[in-house]
This record gives sequence, C-alpha cells and structure tokens, in this order.
Amino acid sequence: MVSGMSQVLERAYAEELDAADPLAGFRERFVLDDPSLVYLNGNSLGALPRATLARIEAVIRQEWGAALARSWDHWVDLPSRAGDVVGELTGAAPGQVIVADNTTVNLYKLACAALDARPGRTVIVTDRDNFPSDRYVLEGIAAQRGLELRMLDTDIDEGLDPAQLQAAVGPDTALVSLSHVAYRSGALADMAAVTEIAHQAGALMLWDLCHSVGAVPVELDRHDVDLAVGCTYKYLNAGPGAPAFLYVATRHQEALRQPIWGWFSQRDQFAMGPAYDPAAGIAKFVTGTPSIPGTAAVEESARLLLEAGLEPMRAKSLKLTGYLVELGEAWLEPLGCALATPRDGARRGGHVTYCHPRAEQITERLADAGIITDYRTPDRFRFGLSPLTTRFTDVWAAVAATRDLVKRG
Amino acid sequence: MVSGMSQVLERAYAEELDAADPLAGFRERFVLDDPSLVYLNGNSLGALPRATLARIEAVIRQEWGAALARSWDHWVDLPSRAGDVVGELTGAAPGQVIVADNTTVNLYKLACAALDARPGRTVIVTDRDNFPSDRYVLEGIAAQRGLELRMLDTDIDEGLDPAQLQAAVGPDTALVSLSHVAYRSGALADMAAVTEIAHQAGALMLWDLCHSVGAVPVELDRHDVDLAVGCTYKYLNAGPGAPAFLYVATRHQEALRQPIWGWFSQRDQFAMGPAYDPAAGIAKFVTGTPSIPGTAAVEESARLLLEAGLEPMRAKSLKLTGYLVELGEAWLEPLGCALATPRDGARRGGHVTYCHPRAEQITERLADAGIITDYRTPDRFRFGLSPLTTRFTDVWAAVAATRDLVKRG
Repeated sequence: MVSGMSQVLERAYAEELDAADPLAGFRERFVLDDPSLVYLNGNSLGALPRATLARIEAVIRQEWGAALARSWDHWVDLPSRAGDVVGELTGAAPGQVIVADNTTVNLYKLACAALDARPGRTVIVTDRDNFPSDRYVLEGIAAQRGLELRMLDTDIDEGLDPAQLQAAVGPDTALVSLSHVAYRSGALADMAAVTEIAHQAGALMLWDLCHSVGAVPVELDRHDVDLAVGCTYKYLNAGPGAPAFLYVATRHQEALRQPIWGWFSQRDQFAMGPAYDPAAGIAKFVTGTPSIPGTAAVEESARLLLEAGLEPMRAKSLKLTGYLVELGEAWLEPLGCALATPRDGARRGGHVTYCHPRAEQITERLADAGIITDYRTPDRFRFGLSPLTTRFTDVWAAVAATRDLVKRG
Repeated sequence: MVSGMSQVLERAYAEELDAADPLAGFRERFVLDDPSLVYLNGNSLGALPRATLARIEAVIRQEWGAALARSWDHWVDLPSRAGDVVGELTGAAPGQVIVADNTTVNLYKLACAALDARPGRTVIVTDRDNFPSDRYVLEGIAAQRGLELRMLDTDIDEGLDPAQLQAAVGPDTALVSLSHVAYRSGALADMAAVTEIAHQAGALMLWDLCHSVGAVPVELDRHDVDLAVGCTYKYLNAGPGAPAFLYVATRHQEALRQPIWGWFSQRDQFAMGPAYDPAAGIAKFVTGTPSIPGTAAVEESARLLLEAGLEPMRAKSLKLTGYLVELGEAWLEPLGCALATPRDGARRGGHVTYCHPRAEQITERLADAGIITDYRTPDRFRFGLSPLTTRFTDVWAAVAATRDLVKRG
C-alpha cells in the first residue's frame, strides 16, 4: 500500500482502501444501481437493501394481496420479533425492544412514563443541540405538566461534556433525555458516564439512538440504560418513515405505564374487554395497529447489519470518517471550512460536518454533480458515511469536489 | 330478472345481480387472483388494489431505491396531499384532513386537544360498545387528567340511540367520542343528530370513521363535525397498518393544539429553531416522520374509491347487505342465528353480523372452506361486504355454507 501524505491524497489510495475493505462486498446487497452516484446521506435516509425490497414485496403481494386478513396470525407479534433483532443491534437482551410508531411518538410515550415514575420531581434535562423533535416533544410535555425543561448549553461541535450535565442535575431531576450521536456534529456522547450521572441524581435516562444505531456500537444493557428510542430509516436502512423502536429495560417494564392506551398493548387483545389491562413486558408500549410492511422492513434491514457485524462496521466507520477528516485537513480546512465534528475518532459517530458560510449552496452544487450530502442550519454541511454502502472513493470524490467548489467561490 | 322468494334463494339469482352490477368491473382492479376465495373480511383488511401495488413498488424502487433522500422534496407534503384525497371521501373541504400515525395515536392527540379547549369541563362521553382502542385511549386520558369517562349503555345490536346520549351530556361535558359505524353490529349512528346533541351541550364531537369510511357516505363539513379519525386498512384498502387519518374542522385549527410536539408539525421544519412553533392549519396535527410508502398507498387507494363514486358504492353496499339479510332470514335465522345488525338498511354500514353460540367455530370452519369472515367476542360472526370487491355470488356462497355448517352442528 502506498503511504506518505501526497500519496494519501491520490484517488489511487482510495481505490486501495476499497480493495482492502472487508465489508466492500456488502454494497452489492443494496439497490444502488447508478455507479456514478456518490451517496453520502445515509444518515438522513439509508439505501435500499435488496433483501428488504424482496421482503416488502412479499409482504405486499403474498401476505396482504393473496393471504389477506389471514396473515394477522403471524403479523400480530411482528413488532416484538423485529424489536428483538433491533435489540441485538443495540446490546439489549430479548424482550426489551419493540418496533412501533415514530421516534417522536415513542419519545412522548417514554418521557411521560418516566415522569409518572418520578412524582414530585419537576425538572427534565436535555441539551440545546438535541434534535428538534426531541426538544419540542419535551417542551410540550413540560408545558402540559408545569415542569421545567432545563437546557444544557452544549458545544455544538464538540458535543456533550459530562461535567456540564453533572452540574445541571439534582434531586429535582426526573428525566435526562439526550442523543447518543449529535445530529449536526456527529459527536458521540459517553453513554456510560452520562447514564451514571443521571442515575446518581435519581433520574431516569432516555437515550435517542437515531444517529447512532448502525453507525456505532450501542450497549444499552451493559450501560444500565433505562429507556431509549431510535429511528430505522438512517443507518438501519428500513425506508422513509419506517417505524421507530423503543427500549424499556426489563426492570422498569412492570412499573412504567405509557400514556396512549391502545388495543395493541392490551393483555388479551382480541377479547376486547371492557377496561384497559396492559400486556406484560415490552408489548405494553405499543399503541394501535403497527405498519406491517414497515415493521417487516425494519426486521429485514436490521438482520443485514447483524450479518455484517457491529465491530467490523465500527472499524470501517472509523476508517471512513478518519480518511475524510484527513482529506479535509489537506483540502478543506485551508480554504476556510471548519471541522465541526470531534477530531478524535473515539468521540464521533458516522457523519462528519464542516462549517462554511456558503454551506447550503455547497450542498446544492454537490447534488448537481451527483454527490448527495446534506445541509443543516445555519452553516453546516454533513457527509454521512455508511459502513455497508460508502466507498473510500466516494469520500475522495466528495471532498475533492467540495474543495473545487469552495475554491471557485 | 327472476323474482319470487324461491328464485331469490337460487345461485342463479346472485349471478344475475352480479351481471347487473355497475361496479362489477372494479373487482378487476384488485389483486384477487384466487377465483375460489370468498373474501368477506374487507372490514378487517381490505384487498390490494393493483394501482396501489404499483404505487408502493414505485415508491420503494424508484423514489427510495434510486432517488434516495432527494425524494423528500415531494414526500414532505404527502401527508396533506393524501389527506385532501381522504377529505374528499369524507365530505371535508381541502386542508382539514391529514394522513399520519395510527388511529389510536390520532384519537389521543385529538381528544387531548379537545379537552384542553374545554377547561373546567370534567366529563368525556363514549359508549360501552365503542371499539376497544377508543375506549382504552379515553380511559387513559381520563385517568391521567382526573376526568370522568361516562359510558353509554348502547344496545350492541341496534346501535346508539340519540336519546340516550341526550340524557348523558350536560354543561360538564367536554367531549363526546363515538364510532360512526359500530364494529360489531355494523349499526350506523346518526351523525347529524348526535353531533347536534354534543354541540347543544357545549361539547366537542370526535367521530371514529374506521368502519364507515369507504362503506357509507360521510359528510363531516355538512354535519358541522369538529374532529374525526379513521383507519385506512379496511374499506380504504391501503394495507395492513397503513397510516390513519384525522380531521380537524378549519374553525378549530387555530385554537386547538395537539400534545405530541414533533418536528413534522413545526412551522419552518428545516430551520430547526430553538422553540416549538406549530405550523398553521392541519399540518400542526402531525407528529414525527410519516411512513412514506404507507401514505402513498392511502392516497392511491382513496383515489380508486373516488373514481367509483360514493353514491354508487353506497347503493351497492345496501344491495349487498340487504341481499345477505334476506338470505339470512330464509336460511340462518330459522337455525338459531340471530341477526345482530339493524334490519333497516338506512341504519347499517357495510357489514352484517349474526349471533350464534358457536360463532368462533363457524368462522374457523368457513375459513377452512375458503370463505373468509371474522369472529368478534363473545358470540358473533361478521360478514364484511366491500362494494368494490364483493360479488353477490360471494354472499350467496357464504350464507349457504354457513347454513350447512350450522345445520350439521
């Protein structure tokens, strides 16, 4: 393999990295039929796995079209079957994850359940750089219940400093709700340390895994996490608006009760009894009828990630982001693009962000050239690197094109 | 055409009705490839329209698989575009219906919004025979807020008597929430009279249209309805767990606020601003990321119903249920099957139910014979008749087979 900085900057070096990539073959498992497309937006919408396409078509044509309502016999526990597969991806033993609703609704259900379990405590803690839906849903709950929503002033490039959280929690704190990987910077929070701080204060910890699941290893059980939610359409590749998931640790399932009492969380659903009697276990956290094609897509796509393996994916993700940061140091930072992601690989997830006053325009010009990234307000452009689909040559092409665009002005 | 009771009971008569059916051709528009299958469970899961299959495949293969995140440009307002099509089906002018979440979550959002708009009032009125999810979600909200859930003792075969409701509402009533067509009996409520009673008491009226949309004409605007929800996987044929819809009359949209504050209801969503600022209009009632294939399926399937026309569909529905009741009088009632649906066509929706102690077993035996109906506790079996897919010969075959099963004991 070549080395030396000047050689690292050559396209040939990226080609060598691709040739040596043990996960390179997984790209063939996706519908990415346009070889000229450079898709670096899997952190917004992941690509379509061929197995997922086949599974959705089987659900639509055979299970719905031909078998019709008879399919409910095996559909009815699909949310928990798919949940256990996602659980394996997030370090959760079976029976703690369920696939249902969207992330916002799941955040709402779990935050309400947590607050009910901490009566008398009046504060919810989150951070100003948390994803908008997380902030809004907590703002709404706080307004409804007359609670305080305490916002940490997190550095939006460097991410959450546990010491800041330590100073913000106390005996008044019912719930701490944060994102594992920050949506703008890609900064990776220290799940163990943060969860421990919340627990020391007697609060429950609710993690949003939207930007981390499938990009970095998640170990919910190991870190004694109480609650978590996450979407499935980014690194999990389950499709636009596919159902989200939620995690409730076994030790909390008996005591916690979610606020939206629907027939899919009823103990003996088809008895249709007179009063609500929630099902045991994680099934209690479903609301109404789940999307069957969507849930099947989650199960299928999550299996593909398990097949690739979490450690090889993290290893490749670190190589991809590290390579991008290295190219950026040579080509983008000298031109005034400021790295807005932690430089230390151990502190970032699967996407890398730069600040530039013309970020929105740069994103649009890149798209015109067939390089799909995305823009985040006010002045950031993100490169999302997916271990199963992103090639090192994609990274090279994107950074080189960005350099040329910024240079041209 | 033949006539006389003995001739009505002949299969040839059903064949003549099929030959004279102006909507008969619509059956070809569905994937119902097994000619021997008698599917009378569209009131549980509607059949798959060919156009919907094509649309879902286009969304998955082209819009997701090939165009990827770039498709968000036209996906982002799909919930309101699909909502307007469903609005046309439910007598709602544009801008009042949106497709999102499931029925349970939509009931929760609208019931909370309504209660917040009637501060000081302490009673929610529903009926004991309302669909389980409706009762449970209201029970949960009442428990959370310390309100009374007042249950009407509706006759489960004859449906809601407006006089009973009149006696139950008063100045304490914040919300009346009922089903337009009852899930067990198929009894059709008098939307105009019931809504007027709720309004006279100063309460808001929330209708559940799950068993009525696509089976009977619905006129939300004309009857001055405040709020409504409904699912899309029954007569609307949008697939298992397809997103539900909700209706908020224009006059209430400014004042009402739903409790789950998500990024898809934010005024300037991609500005990702610091505080929640709900969008104007019906968009305020979305939560998080909607299912795109599911919402596209709703739009496509609803269009097919509009093409057939609401009046022709109701005319055929009445003929189908009337024919079934007539066959039942001759064949089922003498054997101890009690009609559990209003005998007057004007007072029923699209399904017909009988009571029999062996209802569950009868449903299973029919299924073994390729006749799909469904069972509802404790002792009812339902025939769901869909104007676009059910043949009169299906009705004849199902009632004849039921008669033979009951006779055999």
